[in-house]
Amino acid sequence: MDKIKVPAEPDGKRFQDHWRTCVGTGRLGLALQKEYLDHLSVIQREIGFKYIRGHGLFHDDIGIYREDRVDGRSRPFYNFMYIDRIFDSFLERGIRPFVELGFMPSKLSTGENKVFYWEGNTTPPTDYDKWANLIKAVILHFIDRYGLDEVLKWPFEVWNEPNLPGFWQNADMGEYCKLYEVTARAVKEVNPDLKVGGPAICGGADHWIVEFLSFCHDQKVPLDFVTRHAYTSKQPEVTPHFYYQELYENTYMLEEFKSVREIIDRSPMGKLPFHITEYNTSWHPLNPVHDTVLNAAYLCRILSEGGDYVDSFSYWTFSDVFEECDVPRSQFHGGFGLIALNGIPKPTFHVFKFFKKAEGDILFRDERTLVTRKKDGAIAVLAWNEVMDKGDDFQRELALEIPVEYATVFMKRSTISEQYGNPWRSWIQMGRPRFSSKQAVETLKQVARPLVTTGRLESENGYIRLITTLTKNEVSLFEFSQIHDESHTYIGLDDSKITSY
Amino acid sequence: MDKIKVPAEPDGKRFQDHWRTCVGTGRLGLALQKEYLDHLSVIQREIGFKYIRGHGLFHDDIGIYREDRVDGRSRPFYNFMYIDRIFDSFLERGIRPFVELGFMPSKLSTGENKVFYWEGNTTPPTDYDKWANLIKAVILHFIDRYGLDEVLKWPFEVWNEPNLPGFWQNADMGEYCKLYEVTARAVKEVNPDLKVGGPAICGGADHWIVEFLSFCHDQKVPLDFVTRHAYTSKQPEVTPHFYYQELYENTYMLEEFKSVREIIDRSPMGKLPFHITEYNTSWHPLNPVHDTVLNAAYLCRILSEGGDYVDSFSYWTFSDVFEECDVPRSQFHGGFGLIALNGIPKPTFHVFKFFKKAEGDILFRDERTLVTRKKDGAIAVLAWNEVMDKGDDFQRELALEIPVEYATVFMKRSTISEQYGNPWRSWIQMGRPRFSSKQAVETLKQVARPLVTTGRLESENGYIRLITTLTKNEVSLFEFSQIHDESHTYIGLDDSKITSY
Amino acid sequence: MDKIKVPAEPDGKRFQDHWRTCVGTGRLGLALQKEYLDHLSVIQREIGFKYIRGHGLFHDDIGIYREDRVDGRSRPFYNFMYIDRIFDSFLERGIRPFVELGFMPSKLSTGENKVFYWEGNTTPPTDYDKWANLIKAVILHFIDRYGLDEVLKWPFEVWNEPNLPGFWQNADMGEYCKLYEVTARAVKEVNPDLKVGGPAICGGADHWIVEFLSFCHDQKVPLDFVTRHAYTSKQPEVTPHFYYQELYENTYMLEEFKSVREIIDRSPMGKLPFHITEYNTSWHPLNPVHDTVLNAAYLCRILSEGGDYVDSFSYWTFSDVFEECDVPRSQFHGGFGLIALNGIPKPTFHVFKFFKKAEGDILFRDERTLVTRKKDGAIAVLAWNEVMDKGDDFQRELALEIPVEYATVFMKRSTISEQYGNPWRSWIQMGRPRFSSKQAVETLKQVARPLVTTGRLESENGYIRLITTLTKNEVSLFEFSQIHDESHTYIGLDDSKITSY
Amino acid sequence: MDKIKVPAEPDGKRFQDHWRTCVGTGRLGLALQKEYLDHLSVIQREIGFKYIRGHGLFHDDIGIYREDRVDGRSRPFYNFMYIDRIFDSFLERGIRPFVELGFMPSKLSTGENKVFYWEGNTTPPTDYDKWANLIKAVILHFIDRYGLDEVLKWPFEVWNEPNLPGFWQNADMGEYCKLYEVTARAVKEVNPDLKVGGPAICGGADHWIVEFLSFCHDQKVPLDFVTRHAYTSKQPEVTPHFYYQELYENTYMLEEFKSVREIIDRSPMGKLPFHITEYNTSWHPLNPVHDTVLNAAYLCRILSEGGDYVDSFSYWTFSDVFEECDVPRSQFHGGFGLIALNGIPKPTFHVFKFFKKAEGDILFRDERTLVTRKKDGAIAVLAWNEVMDKGDDFQRELALEIPVEYATVFMKRSTISEQYGNPWRSWIQMGRPRFSSKQAVETLKQVARPLVTTGRLESENGYIRLITTLTKNEVSLFEFSQIHDESHTYIGLDDSKITSY
Repeated sequence: MDKIKVPAEPDGKRFQDHWRTCVGTGRLGLALQKEYLDHLSVIQREIGFKYIRGHGLFHDDIGIYREDRVDGRSRPFYNFMYIDRIFDSFLERGIRPFVELGFMPSKLSTGENKVFYWEGNTTPPTDYDKWANLIKAVILHFIDRYGLDEVLKWPFEVWNEPNLPGFWQNADMGEYCKLYEVTARAVKEVNPDLKVGGPAICGGADHWIVEFLSFCHDQKVPLDFVTRHAYTSKQPEVTPHFYYQELYENTYMLEEFKSVREIIDRSPMGKLPFHITEYNTSWHPLNPVHDTVLNAAYLCRILSEGGDYVDSFSYWTFSDVFEECDVPRSQFHGGFGLIALNGIPKPTFHVFKFFKKAEGDILFRDERTLVTRKKDGAIAVLAWNEVMDKGDDFQRELALEIPVEYATVFMKRSTISEQYGNPWRSWIQMGRPRFSSKQAVETLKQVARPLVTTGRLESENGYIRLITTLTKNEVSLFEFSQIHDESHTYIGLDDSKITSY
Repeated sequence: MDKIKVPAEPDGKRFQDHWRTCVGTGRLGLALQKEYLDHLSVIQREIGFKYIRGHGLFHDDIGIYREDRVDGRSRPFYNFMYIDRIFDSFLERGIRPFVELGFMPSKLSTGENKVFYWEGNTTPPTDYDKWANLIKAVILHFIDRYGLDEVLKWPFEVWNEPNLPGFWQNADMGEYCKLYEVTARAVKEVNPDLKVGGPAICGGADHWIVEFLSFCHDQKVPLDFVTRHAYTSKQPEVTPHFYYQELYENTYMLEEFKSVREIIDRSPMGKLPFHITEYNTSWHPLNPVHDTVLNAAYLCRILSEGGDYVDSFSYWTFSDVFEECDVPRSQFHGGFGLIALNGIPKPTFHVFKFFKKAEGDILFRDERTLVTRKKDGAIAVLAWNEVMDKGDDFQRELALEIPVEYATVFMKRSTISEQYGNPWRSWIQMGRPRFSSKQAVETLKQVARPLVTTGRLESENGYIRLITTLTKNEVSLFEFSQIHDESHTYIGLDDSKITSY
Repeated sequence: MDKIKVPAEPDGKRFQDHWRTCVGTGRLGLALQKEYLDHLSVIQREIGFKYIRGHGLFHDDIGIYREDRVDGRSRPFYNFMYIDRIFDSFLERGIRPFVELGFMPSKLSTGENKVFYWEGNTTPPTDYDKWANLIKAVILHFIDRYGLDEVLKWPFEVWNEPNLPGFWQNADMGEYCKLYEVTARAVKEVNPDLKVGGPAICGGADHWIVEFLSFCHDQKVPLDFVTRHAYTSKQPEVTPHFYYQELYENTYMLEEFKSVREIIDRSPMGKLPFHITEYNTSWHPLNPVHDTVLNAAYLCRILSEGGDYVDSFSYWTFSDVFEECDVPRSQFHGGFGLIALNGIPKPTFHVFKFFKKAEGDILFRDERTLVTRKKDGAIAVLAWNEVMDKGDDFQRELALEIPVEYATVFMKRSTISEQYGNPWRSWIQMGRPRFSSKQAVETLKQVARPLVTTGRLESENGYIRLITTLTKNEVSLFEFSQIHDESHTYIGLDDSKITSY
Repeated sequence: MDKIKVPAEPDGKRFQDHWRTCVGTGRLGLALQKEYLDHLSVIQREIGFKYIRGHGLFHDDIGIYREDRVDGRSRPFYNFMYIDRIFDSFLERGIRPFVELGFMPSKLSTGENKVFYWEGNTTPPTDYDKWANLIKAVILHFIDRYGLDEVLKWPFEVWNEPNLPGFWQNADMGEYCKLYEVTARAVKEVNPDLKVGGPAICGGADHWIVEFLSFCHDQKVPLDFVTRHAYTSKQPEVTPHFYYQELYENTYMLEEFKSVREIIDRSPMGKLPFHITEYNTSWHPLNPVHDTVLNAAYLCRILSEGGDYVDSFSYWTFSDVFEECDVPRSQFHGGFGLIALNGIPKPTFHVFKFFKKAEGDILFRDERTLVTRKKDGAIAVLAWNEVMDKGDDFQRELALEIPVEYATVFMKRSTISEQYGNPWRSWIQMGRPRFSSKQAVETLKQVARPLVTTGRLESENGYIRLITTLTKNEVSLFEFSQIHDESHTYIGLDDSKITSY
């Protein structure tokens, strides 16, 4: 039994909403699709991220960089038709691009090093001047279309995970530093107030950060923020359909946030903003863990505490509209998305909604609990019971004493668990149909909702007491608000006069 | 324990959807309102009635009948501005008017006999020729606007509950017969294929039907269908806010359907169609029973069996947008609506949805159970546990053996009960706030949903066995469908490789 | 020929958008209707007023004030069900209420003095304490629902046109001062920062303003702003269907704005804000002038200059969804609306859109011309040719020299005139059908659009020259913007290689 | 001067709407895009085609055909995720697929013969059994998802333009016959009532049709319909940006329709249905003629008469969302679409709308005029003035005598011409901006509308007389309908009492 007596006053720490600053997306070219945009509309209406980040700005499908033969010579042609449509779609939905500058257009590429089903080219440019011109042309166009005030709010990040040979030929750090320098100087040439950063590495290579910071410092290369990724999955077991991986504890990720934060603070560049531009449990889009309730419960602590260390951390990704491992082959397939195909929210989606509802001053926080209070006195308790062990017997008993300033309290409880808000489980019962019928979609949407129940409590000596149980991997949000009872205004009210009551 | 072995073959009786033929509405003038139309859109998308019937076609707020002074004389002016907008709105939402011809325009009225907060005038016309001209002008306009083919599908019913003095001055049967005759002849003068009927009486006065049928027969007055209302509430206890009434058993209503059906069949007019143009538990719009789960459970048997006796029965009404007793004074107030104000569905709404899902051949039916099968072999079990006694201990234990032609079965259970799908209960917990905040509306919509759970069963010897419990007043719909299991197509599938599973 | 050489620099005066601060509406109860809200959505998307003002807040149809018998005594009951829905609808569409406090609820009224088809009661209250309690209850509810910050932005105006006996029994100024004082003190009792004003008189009675200001000053009655109405129509000729009135010159209204402004400034209350809370040509809702192009051309000068004198002037009204003279009897009927029934914009609607497009620094302005420049250098010329004489020969020749900073100019001309953007004329050709078929609505919407044409000009010595003709009652908006010609980037471009070109 | 006296009775020929049976689309993969679907929604609401046909069903981007390594062997995997989404989108918009079976999935292809920017593989399959299995699997899936009744309405066409080496390796007729036979037999194996056809050749190779029909006859290969394409452009002149081509007269295409119709009728296969599954002026998507008014005027005769010869002819294509020559590089670029990027309708779009409005019995038809009458007596005159010569002086004077059965006639004229409904012209004036700003899109949409004017005519001796002028390349639709004048019902009506009138 977890016994918690919540203090009546906050400890001064506000709950940081840095978990809501940015979210990841499949390659930008997918943002032309209707299903993608339908999902993004839901995400923005229900959660409301501030930025969106994805690969593929310069990939051939968006077609920004082309070359024409004119008078026998090759000449660059910049085509903004699709990227305008994409960024318009983002801004119309209240979300700004966190611009990743990459990968390499075929026409500028020096080789066949490619990544993903969609074959992003990850080689250095044939000509760094042409690359710089591309960067400048693109940003100038953004300013022309959206205005300087708007574009000054867009961070520009140079490339993605250059420490992996798939993403950057030979994982060549020297070449990356060159790319970074050329790019950063091109950005600043357009306007010195634009923000540029890197090195966008994945975990396990933090010496890159040390050396990259030194490089920028020594060479006086502009650097406005530092970026890195974070995943907590171990070595994979691969089947043709799935990528299975065990997970580390979620503290593993928080430790990474913290240690890199310290690396930056100790560096000659000083206290630069630090953005986790990708994180999730597994880094593979065919890992079924993403569809589970465990994924949701596991992330709670990270959402609760991550903002203490980093300026943003960006869940990878908002939707299963995603093609890094080919067109998805089934309704559920282990994709990263908060929303599965056909618009079905996963448990992790609801955890994000719960955290949004829980914004306020922190009254209490531990590794499985967060209690906050809003200005109007409403209190939110977010409690989770993440269990990485197999088996069913892992209930969490919880006894809370919560300070309230009012006598009568309305309680609303929203729950996701193995039983509720878990469409993956119903889909398994259905026999894992690959291509959902309309009827199946309807059922999956219904079971994807959290269970919502309500109640009424009386406070005693300024406290209400809540004793409750969380089943395995359950996440429950309890919202407490004052009741202004109006029952006495109904003259002659008497429910017992109703048949059956 | 109810033990039921469902036969493998239907008994030949199809489940009649006459419960879905028509639905009632507040006075037609309310159909100009946005909230009304929003509710109607939901109703039509989720249930899909064929007709809608309400009072007030000739009420002054719609303004059809006016008189002008021209050259010192009074001349009728027919204004179709609003009725066109209203009927357009109905037809755009896939529902046709079941036209009630009434009440009396002020300019044609002979007195101050009025009904409802909105003061419908219920006196005979000053001049029956003017009334007949009005009827003809209106129907000719309908034909002009919507085409004859369309209007031939609209039943025309003469007046409403003339057997009550509030609705028809002195409840004068002779005067009603006159009104009916003039009206019916006017309708047929426009086109002899148009359908006209009456007498739209409330219960407790079936001698009106006997005499009305004789009258029509003897006077050779056209009559295409017979109409009557049916409610099951006893004498009221009135408080300033509410109208409390005990209910008769629901068989009371089925008996009424049956006995009037017989009256008609035995009459000299013969086997005319018989429409119940209003029914509900209570006939009062401030009776809290309408908001309860009991109301939903209680009606199940009527929906299940009513269609055996009558050609339609029209639930009174689809929405709490209703003003017979003044502007509603609170979120829940005992209104008739399937949908409460602010778009919150009540338990009875879901029962209608459940019955729609249960359409098919009847395999089994008793007073608390309906089992049907669709052409594709899918089976629906609708079970209810209506309890009119007070207290909590009235569970219904149910053991079903259901014949299926397939080995593995997906089960979807949708439940409303005192605990789930019951926004009235949460609203009471909130302290019965009269005017819902947006936050309250959000919560009430969430708790208004049925609980949906799913499962998987294996058949044995051509049967699946379901043992389950229904709590007090619970209504559960069980949908069983064949599973085409595709799990084997996922090569290397093994959920146990996922952390926690 | 009007020859105008537009100066290159503004004279320091900004074009005031006070014409866009507020707009009038039919009684608030109509705001429950779908058609009303559809029109308001269009108005807000295309023009975007800040406030909306209409009668009938306390009219019985919204039902705010009721009385219950409790223990043998009458007790007030405040019902906010409908007003919440109405104000929610306004705020969702980005428009705030300019709250008119009136008329009298039946239950509080002292007589049968009524106004309009909808019978607004215009008598003093039976009990000024009950009235004050009503005011306080209503405003407290608004603050509870919308927050104090929001409600502090809502002006509260006391009553409407008390100088007319139809609107205030006996047009009793002393009684109005009493009503004002009680009301203003009640408002300030809720919160002293709330804004309250009056006397909302119609024209022709400005001694009311003088005396009202003295009264407030002498009695230390709170007064935050002064309100008055303005119409320019002469004595009517009334037919059963229409109200015909000749118009004064439009300068008549501007003179009124100016003279009342001076009355206020000279008063002991000093330079209070001054709002024209209603204006139009005719004050009657069955005057066909409202449907004409003359109405649009006539108002241009008022929109152009009115803001120099008053803090807002509120066009009466945005929509023909209006019932002061009964339910409208035909598609066009002389209603006030910017938008006619069935969503058809009138010429005056487009003039409002044109003025919105013309916002910027004034470069030139005379009685039939307005030239402005935006920050990006784009120039708008709004020219009109209002002609009050009958007959067709009243063209206006116009020669403009317009300073531009760029060589090549794109011109977009938007025109309404007797020929274009004039659905009333097409409707007359159709034979004035009262109740539009869907086909007629489609045609009327098509002809209701302004004619839009485009062109290209070259500047010479920093000027472009525009010589053009305006037909009778034409209003044309010319928008000039810089061309960044990209034709040279199309390699091998040659239109003459296209067949026919 | 064209003097035309329209006969009072039809000649028995109904105007065929075969022009509306089918429309072309860019490759099916583009149907995932929001902009594509937005355009399709407009097309279906405004015109309403019955079928849609495009390339790329088996292209890798839709991902239907994949292969897995299982137990060391390759095994086909059919992925219907995207094609379900695409066909759902079609059916939701009321349009059915006219299914083109092609091109070759990479995994089944025998070479690198590819077509278009998007690299459709146009080689024979590695294994005709695998191909047949693919065909069967796909159609079985369609039947499973949409029902047999639905899929029986979908024609299946084998491949596209096999007579061109780009589209079919070596344009090998023998190989095509093999492909056709295997495919047709596979289709019929699924269900013998499914419809299959070919050979989908382009013009200039009609011996293919002769030989293909003989082949099917001799080999008893199922063939339900014959397909061919038709374009009227001559040899191109190519610049890096555009493809310029002179056009043949439009009778060239009608002759083709006719002659191939005769080939089929004379063949041993007999009177098979004949579908033109693609037609347009130019066959190149970078030919500016598609954006012009000439294109619209030119096609009128083909729309007017084409249906006399063929069972359908399918305009290639409905939208400029199209990628055969790379991502479009500018707002207008000579694309095939009826709708340009950013939702701007082209003149040809309006011609299709005009023809839809003109449906009825033919009263008169010549090479530049079509007169029809609807059942309700409404008459449509569609007149065009297609001019292939350069220069401006090509007005068409037209004097029509039109028989009407009513005295007073309402005329609605809708016009597109070089001046009206011509966004391409305004865009040229703007300096051909490649990537339209929102402001430019707004202007282009406004100028893209036809000019609509109205009038009123009196008939004399049963005829109305219309004398009018058509400017170069103008297309005008005149709609005449009876006026039921209601002016006399407005008592006291007198417009001269309105100021200015």
